[in-house]
Amino acid sequence: MRFQVKISAIFFISIASVMSCRNENLPNIALDEAQGLEEHPKLILTAQGVKDIRAQLGSIPIFDNTLQKVKEEIDAEIALGIETPIPKDYSGGYTHARHKRNWFVLQKAGVLYQILDDEKYAKYVKDMLMQYEEMYKTLPLHPKTRSYARGKLFWQCLNDSNWLVYVSQAYDCIYNYLTEEERNILENNLFRPFADHISIDSPQFYQRVHNHSTWGNAAVGMIGLVMDDEELINRALYGIKGVNLDNKAKDDDGGFLNKDGKAGFLANIEEPFSPDGYYNEGPYYQRYAMYPFLVFAEGLHNVKPELNIFEYKNGVLLKSINALLNLTDADGEFFPLNDGQKGMSYYNSALVTAVDVSYHYGDQNPGLLSIAKQQNQVLLDDSGLAVALGIKNGEAQPFNKSSINLSDGPDGTEGGVGVIRNEDIELVFKYAAQGSSHGHYDKLSYSLYENGEEVIQDYGLARFVNIEQKGGGNYLKENKTWAKQTIAHNTVTVDETSHFEGKYETGSKFHSVLNYFSSENEKVQVASARENNAYPGTEMLRTMAIISDKDFEKPITLDIMKVTSSSINDYDLPHYFFGQVLETNFEYQTPETLLPLGNKNGYQHLFVEGTGKSNEVNSKLSWMDNYRFYTLTTVTNPKDELLFTRIGANDPEFNLRRDPALLLRRKDSKSTTFVTAIESHGSYSPVTESAVNSKSSIKTIRVVLDSDAYTAVEINHVNGKRKIFITSNKNNSEKVKHKLNIDDKNYEWSGSYYFD
Amino acid sequence: MRFQVKISAIFFISIASVMSCRNENLPNIALDEAQGLEEHPKLILTAQGVKDIRAQLGSIPIFDNTLQKVKEEIDAEIALGIETPIPKDYSGGYTHARHKRNWFVLQKAGVLYQILDDEKYAKYVKDMLMQYEEMYKTLPLHPKTRSYARGKLFWQCLNDSNWLVYVSQAYDCIYNYLTEEERNILENNLFRPFADHISIDSPQFYQRVHNHSTWGNAAVGMIGLVMDDEELINRALYGIKGVNLDNKAKDDDGGFLNKDGKAGFLANIEEPFSPDGYYNEGPYYQRYAMYPFLVFAEGLHNVKPELNIFEYKNGVLLKSINALLNLTDADGEFFPLNDGQKGMSYYNSALVTAVDVSYHYGDQNPGLLSIAKQQNQVLLDDSGLAVALGIKNGEAQPFNKSSINLSDGPDGTEGGVGVIRNEDIELVFKYAAQGSSHGHYDKLSYSLYENGEEVIQDYGLARFVNIEQKGGGNYLKENKTWAKQTIAHNTVTVDETSHFEGKYETGSKFHSVLNYFSSENEKVQVASARENNAYPGTEMLRTMAIISDKDFEKPITLDIMKVTSSSINDYDLPHYFFGQVLETNFEYQTPETLLPLGNKNGYQHLFVEGTGKSNEVNSKLSWMDNYRFYTLTTVTNPKDELLFTRIGANDPEFNLRRDPALLLRRKDSKSTTFVTAIESHGSYSPVTESAVNSKSSIKTIRVVLDSDAYTAVEINHVNGKRKIFITSNKNNSEKVKHKLNIDDKNYEWSGSYYFD
Repeated sequence: MRFQVKISAIFFISIASVMSCRNENLPNIALDEAQGLEEHPKLILTAQGVKDIRAQLGSIPIFDNTLQKVKEEIDAEIALGIETPIPKDYSGGYTHARHKRNWFVLQKAGVLYQILDDEKYAKYVKDMLMQYEEMYKTLPLHPKTRSYARGKLFWQCLNDSNWLVYVSQAYDCIYNYLTEEERNILENNLFRPFADHISIDSPQFYQRVHNHSTWGNAAVGMIGLVMDDEELINRALYGIKGVNLDNKAKDDDGGFLNKDGKAGFLANIEEPFSPDGYYNEGPYYQRYAMYPFLVFAEGLHNVKPELNIFEYKNGVLLKSINALLNLTDADGEFFPLNDGQKGMSYYNSALVTAVDVSYHYGDQNPGLLSIAKQQNQVLLDDSGLAVALGIKNGEAQPFNKSSINLSDGPDGTEGGVGVIRNEDIELVFKYAAQGSSHGHYDKLSYSLYENGEEVIQDYGLARFVNIEQKGGGNYLKENKTWAKQTIAHNTVTVDETSHFEGKYETGSKFHSVLNYFSSENEKVQVASARENNAYPGTEMLRTMAIISDKDFEKPITLDIMKVTSSSINDYDLPHYFFGQVLETNFEYQTPETLLPLGNKNGYQHLFVEGTGKSNEVNSKLSWMDNYRFYTLTTVTNPKDELLFTRIGANDPEFNLRRDPALLLRRKDSKSTTFVTAIESHGSYSPVTESAVNSKSSIKTIRVVLDSDAYTAVEINHVNGKRKIFITSNKNNSEKVKHKLNIDDKNYEWSGSYYFD
Repeated sequence: MRFQVKISAIFFISIASVMSCRNENLPNIALDEAQGLEEHPKLILTAQGVKDIRAQLGSIPIFDNTLQKVKEEIDAEIALGIETPIPKDYSGGYTHARHKRNWFVLQKAGVLYQILDDEKYAKYVKDMLMQYEEMYKTLPLHPKTRSYARGKLFWQCLNDSNWLVYVSQAYDCIYNYLTEEERNILENNLFRPFADHISIDSPQFYQRVHNHSTWGNAAVGMIGLVMDDEELINRALYGIKGVNLDNKAKDDDGGFLNKDGKAGFLANIEEPFSPDGYYNEGPYYQRYAMYPFLVFAEGLHNVKPELNIFEYKNGVLLKSINALLNLTDADGEFFPLNDGQKGMSYYNSALVTAVDVSYHYGDQNPGLLSIAKQQNQVLLDDSGLAVALGIKNGEAQPFNKSSINLSDGPDGTEGGVGVIRNEDIELVFKYAAQGSSHGHYDKLSYSLYENGEEVIQDYGLARFVNIEQKGGGNYLKENKTWAKQTIAHNTVTVDETSHFEGKYETGSKFHSVLNYFSSENEKVQVASARENNAYPGTEMLRTMAIISDKDFEKPITLDIMKVTSSSINDYDLPHYFFGQVLETNFEYQTPETLLPLGNKNGYQHLFVEGTGKSNEVNSKLSWMDNYRFYTLTTVTNPKDELLFTRIGANDPEFNLRRDPALLLRRKDSKSTTFVTAIESHGSYSPVTESAVNSKSSIKTIRVVLDSDAYTAVEINHVNGKRKIFITSNKNNSEKVKHKLNIDDKNYEWSGSYYFD
């Protein structure tokens, strides 16, 4: 078959010299065998793409630089020789790291072979694949037993699937370099059994709607596309025929294995993405899942164009990239909704794929080019070429992140996530569904950022990904006992019990409901949502506004959490700030001995560092972080307790960060409303030692009306000026006209809120 | 007199147009009054300097830009109008901030008048000075009573002195703009009484060797130079004639007011600076004191050149600038030795003065030009012009910070501070004298940096300078109860008692003694010093080495603390690391309840978060900080206790940072040696989620010999290689040849140490 490679190469390789060093070793194969020949590569790189790339090489700086780096990296790897150790370790260990490294190296070497047309790369890929073939055909299950679905090269099928997603691309690139016999060996002893192991042999992994399964589906489908194996392609698209899992069984993370029997790549697009492109597990896992979604979609687009994969579900794959990019802070880091490791950002290689694919297969949004410039690399394929040409032609524009409201749920009817942006302030408000097995019990929670720095943090996950010393780099038990619990989040916990009693089955049945989202007026942007099921009999309605007003240096955050209950409860609302306490307007005592706040549901992880009460109408806390001043002002009554807490109790292996919070505790209450304002103000310079605008500008905030229909909050500035914010707790469509008298003054507005 | 200004202006102003708008308002003064005329400005700006500057304007970018910024700043101030409120507040409060702002504004407006030759600036300075004159002549002592020496404009004489140091310059700049009558009013009602208040009326402030007094001396001397008042100049140089203070009295900080009767500017140069230019209180306070030292020296140089002030004490003022610049980390931030607020750096305006003065009056070190470029501003005077021209002419070179050993004490015989630099690692080793009233009880303490980030921290001070909410921005009580105590530092505390029992009188009598400092061999650099007086009867000899070896990724730190005692003691040696604990090789328990480690001497501020014991020859702790891995390996015996501590106990106002430490506790021991190695290794990326070289390369460290004369430590690499470091505990001059047999192997070397 190698002969036919040369024949087809003549058609698409314009550089005559590529023929020069080839003909000596041509196998003696009859020309009529050429009839079965398919053009390769075809999966991600295409024959035409390779032709176009070669024509542009040397004149497309970002592409050329990426290529040069990849070449240096792979040349160094080749010089070190091939290693395919017998699998042994968890992630973080040597064999894991080596096989992981190999999948990247194989994929890149394949690409280099195509673009540079240098056989040494093809030979390297072939040699390593043959070594894998030799090992794999007798390889038992991986010796580590912790996974619900053990792989063979890795401790979990997930990583085996990662491997195959990359290696299919390598195989595609050298497909025509190999003899038919070589291909048969690889396909029969390595690729097909490999695909079978992660699918047929591991239905609890494969036959689901879950990011793990997406990798599995893509792996099976991509090798199927390369091998032109319709059975594998169908297994990838629609799941394993006739297999249905126990709909009550659970995975390692506590998620249902398969509640409704859906499976396959298309179901994995259908289910987790909302019509707005929000991915139900949150941006960190979307980033992880994104690569197989997009790379398999590229393959399908190239090999099965009739599927119109990029138009599937109204083009949700490309919409999801836009959603993902909008779920980053000013530094491009993802908001750590649900299980998310902080620091992950759009500099991750999966986002290079996302940006390039979105640009090439989407509408050539010039904003994407500026992110590609920041990433400083492109895919070495057709889409990377398009981006490189766009940048070269000076088409890059800033990627403008504005406020955005993203629905959750397959039909966009299961709550959502709202992001409000105003100057340097970003508010992330979560009123979504459970978020599958990586979801946290944090209905109506929020986090607040200023210029990319966390002001009020979401804890993220309790895990140190790939750091072997910390539980093999896997989820730590504190992820369940702390990070997922409600008290770990900036929302209300009732009676020291997490939402849905921390039960995944229950949480998965429900979602919060949008009251309204309003971002038309840049100066007053509001997100409001309701949660009725986290605590049966207790409704929470949270309305959060970011308000610009000329009497305040920066936009302020107003937070109205209205709790309506038929029973008497204890309510806890923490604010996870960062930095140094500067001042309070209330008295507090600090205990000589630190005790945990409770004994379960996350409370066992909080030490109490201080306890206060306030006789003022407002309690105030000022702190300094990142050399900026912040003040939180909250409406309190004399029975409220103000607790300074710090994470870290019952943490026998130092798995948690020692971060502080101010926790407002309101006991023995039925319906009640928590109202809080957060100001960012001024700055401090350790170089000039000058403190600018270090005091709060809020004299008081006051609830002047609180009914089923409306909550009105008065903000009194220290300069004597008074503002009022009224939110419509129901009937907030623009058509509804509201008329209200408060303290002998009439207020009229349409729809959602009033501010003046 | 204004007429004469115009006459002299003709000589040095080349721009003819400056004459155009002037002559209308000339007062009718006889020419013969010109006889008494002195040329002004003369203090910092000089008449010749102004001429040179005007000739270069527009062609010296860094100068032009600085001038433009200052002009914009002052024009904005002038537009806002003049405010000189009745003094009322502590630092951080409004009246303090306003008068502080005024002194800068006056000085800058004066300079603008000279350089831009625009009368609006002179008028502004005059008007504000007249307002001050009107207020000052009836002004009582400042109402706030906390200071040992209250000012009038400010709560402490120190700030009044700051004011006069700047305002003398402003007065000098508009001297000839004023009528004699106006000058008489200002001098009689404002400047002379002002100078008298901070000196004659406040000898406890003025008549000392202390950074406060330096400001006082400079203030009196500078106004004296402008007014041509020999009495004031002499009072500045030599102190108040005939005044001697109670040599037992103390100031607010616990320092002696005046132990030996020395006073005046020259004594203040003589005493605190070692011949190497190390300032006894440390770099943070040197930075603060630097401005009056240098600006008064400039004035003396210009007006009293016969004093040869820059050659005084072998040119120590200029040497001190070099020392100060070398006491910064990779980001230009000062090592926080003694009381020092972190973040202060050579970007501070005092260092702009230092760099420009050092360049101009020193040997035009081109390395200084690169720092000036980073500072991105220059003084608007003769020295700033020289720097601007140097930069313009492309003469800037990198400022090369290498290892440096700085002696302490007026004669350089009172210990010192050693800084060892190797690649990105910086070790700061302190074996100095007490450091006056800002000194900490931290003999033989160290801190460790990597690329400008703290690895093993020195706590610094307990203060939030100028942040009014924190104790008025002044020293907090935790500065004494925590920050100054020995246990707050990375050195040995014996029997839970600070060095010298934390007594300033005792500590001030003694200093540590250098054993040796060796930095000739870049790969093995060693600092070694001895302390005999911190604990009578117990000697501490600490030897710290930074060693490059090809088997280690980065230079490692080796720390040998040899304690020799005649009594049985409890020893505590903490390591104040930062970041996330990853792994230990010893077992530890974490208590459910956190208790303070002790009840005094700083121990009351430490919570115990974990307690461990080790049966291995070494105890190891790995942690991650700034996405880098670190491992500490220390020689332990089974009776040693390993405590995880965290600062923050008994801290009722959250004045302390919640920082961790690993504390090695060795009880009931006489002589003993603590041996520790610290490795920086590898890195973690939250974007690629890959952990590189996350494990320690040290298998074991072992003390193979420990005698009066030698301590030998064997370092066993995980790759099987073995290295030995032998330090000469005495007789370490290069002339001495050492010969030693350990485990049947002979070692021979000359002088201080052996490594191979």
